[in-house]
Amino acid sequence: MRVLGIDPGLTRCGLGVVEGQPGRPLSAIAVDVVRTAAGTEPAERLLAVHESICAWLEAYEPDAVAVERVFTQANVSTVMGTAQASGVALLAAARHGVPVSLYTPSEVKAAVTGHGRADKQQVTAMVTRLLRLDTSPKPADAADALALGVCHVWRGGARNRLAAAVAAADSRRNP
Amino acid sequence: MRVLGIDPGLTRCGLGVVEGQPGRPLSAIAVDVVRTAAGTEPAERLLAVHESICAWLEAYEPDAVAVERVFTQANVSTVMGTAQASGVALLAAARHGVPVSLYTPSEVKAAVTGHGRADKQQVTAMVTRLLRLDTSPKPADAADALALGVCHVWRGGARNRLAAAVAAADSRRNP
Repeated sequence: MRVLGIDPGLTRCGLGVVEGQPGRPLSAIAVDVVRTAAGTEPAERLLAVHESICAWLEAYEPDAVAVERVFTQANVSTVMGTAQASGVALLAAARHGVPVSLYTPSEVKAAVTGHGRADKQQVTAMVTRLLRLDTSPKPADAADALALGVCHVWRGGARNRLAAAVAAADSRRNP
Repeated sequence: MRVLGIDPGLTRCGLGVVEGQPGRPLSAIAVDVVRTAAGTEPAERLLAVHESICAWLEAYEPDAVAVERVFTQANVSTVMGTAQASGVALLAAARHGVPVSLYTPSEVKAAVTGHGRADKQQVTAMVTRLLRLDTSPKPADAADALALGVCHVWRGGARNRLAAAVAAADSRRNP
């Protein structure tokens, strides 16, 4: 299963592609941060973010997209831009017919560190270890995008195992 | 000058096309509300809103798009969806190369009623009068979209008159 993780933002939008199956070693296929200049028109910034995500969807053909859920409690001065960026990220996935899952920051932190209130250093350290990277992904948005991918593989895996168990039970019942 | 006004939203997104010049009677070319079901995936809802806006841009070929600016102070339960919808609206304009202006609700109310704290009934009444409509546009999102169009024509007109005055002064100076 290949997942494109997206940490949405206008100034920095983290993109990371992770491949793996639950219980097996995961690998990072690609990671980058899309940046747009603060002085640029909002519509042009959103276009740049959207086009980058579309290009990644076409280049890496992920099975799923995992996007960080945006909350109003976040930094008020940037939350509207972040929400708009998440909107064009969801749209990019829908335009390419790729299913989207949304995860809260706590869910992602809990998935990769075991603790929903882990700090950025811990998340980066675990992402580096889990994906067996030579150097830590930087900035934090890049590490967060990969963490979203890891989170989805493991969560999706749980759902997949459940589906497999149900199918197996069904086949035992109706052989 | 033809303007597409957009009152962004996921449940209801108001679209209104207004044509006119400052100081002359304005006309409403089209008005509608795009609705998406609350039970649908957010990415699919954003796709439906985006595609409707793109279809309007292609059908009505506006010179400008006027979008209501979203604030965090708004209803917290819906503000994230509204911000995401505004993101895909700005993106649609950028993809079609149409310039976008953002207006606060107070600017729009002040433009059409003369008072920045006018209520919805007043805005609807003035939109109906200014555009010489036989019936009042409903729901409020439809009236707000037309009000955004009116606001932009009048504001843009002020800028156009200023630009014309500057050009005239220049030509007097350098005949």
